[in-house]
Amino acid sequence: MRRSQNIPRKFPLRRAFTFLEEGPVVLLSTFYQGKNNLMTASCTMSMDFSPLAGVMLGPWDCSYRALIQTRECVLAIPGADLLEKTVAIGNCSGDEVDKFAKFRLTPYPASQAQAPLVGEALKNLECRLVRKINVGGGELFVLQGIAAWHNPARRAPRALHAKGDGTVLIDGRHLNLRRKMTRWQDCI
Amino acid sequence: MRRSQNIPRKFPLRRAFTFLEEGPVVLLSTFYQGKNNLMTASCTMSMDFSPLAGVMLGPWDCSYRALIQTRECVLAIPGADLLEKTVAIGNCSGDEVDKFAKFRLTPYPASQAQAPLVGEALKNLECRLVRKINVGGGELFVLQGIAAWHNPARRAPRALHAKGDGTVLIDGRHLNLRRKMTRWQDCI
Repeated sequence: MRRSQNIPRKFPLRRAFTFLEEGPVVLLSTFYQGKNNLMTASCTMSMDFSPLAGVMLGPWDCSYRALIQTRECVLAIPGADLLEKTVAIGNCSGDEVDKFAKFRLTPYPASQAQAPLVGEALKNLECRLVRKINVGGGELFVLQGIAAWHNPARRAPRALHAKGDGTVLIDGRHLNLRRKMTRWQDCI
Repeated sequence: MRRSQNIPRKFPLRRAFTFLEEGPVVLLSTFYQGKNNLMTASCTMSMDFSPLAGVMLGPWDCSYRALIQTRECVLAIPGADLLEKTVAIGNCSGDEVDKFAKFRLTPYPASQAQAPLVGEALKNLECRLVRKINVGGGELFVLQGIAAWHNPARRAPRALHAKGDGTVLIDGRHLNLRRKMTRWQDCI
């Protein structure tokens, strides 16, 4: 990959609801007590067009404390080229490892959050924590998107989708059905 | 498609957390006031392994009332073969149309819910509503999976993923990384 592809560019926040609705695996980036950290998360959802996002975490996650204390994070969406790193990031703890350094990922300055963007990700969404809800076996973090980034130099970006059982799907065909979605024309 | 492929078979509920984590478009099936109904939903998430699922709905959805009143539904996961129907189901209202009849989908009896399975879907998850939470521009319905079904006759099933802007992705390559996910071996 050329280095120029790792410089995130601003993306219109009002279109950033498109980042999470397809259900991609995300890298959740935080900055806490002087250290950047990353975790892999795949239980996420798009909650509205503003954009609002939901992410399930648990107190066993190092990033859980960082997110509660700093009330901000970046949701970075890795492409298929980061598949191995995305899995490996989920296998170690930020308590023991500097994950940006270990996995040679570029912490790129965000515009509003202290947490860094992931330079190599397809997209990055800076978020503020607005609410935490105990639900089921974990906790739902409701995140308000406050700034969005993409890497326009990337051709045919393909996101990852985890099934939760150790298997992963990669985006395949991409179809434009806008004209057929007659009911939501004011949103799309 | 052969007719035998449209007969759902029971699937182990403890493995049904794999249905939603990849972020597929779902058809939400309800039975209310003597009528079956379907809606297309893509703001969903897997919330835990039990399995617990989250779905965003709003009072503008006909199925919203059905789900609140009956406190149950089926989340059916359509394959790429149902792409056109899945979009069309999202364009009309159950107040005016019998969607199972209009789109020639088979309402198959569920085991615990009154809402029917969708015979042609890849997978079906019967659910009970456990909680409804106002969040952002909609409402989050927290659903407890109570019985799961799949269609084992289907080869290479591919789910759909909506980006929210009228474009849709179809599952591409499927990779097995179980051995690399060292941290979650007890779950997967």
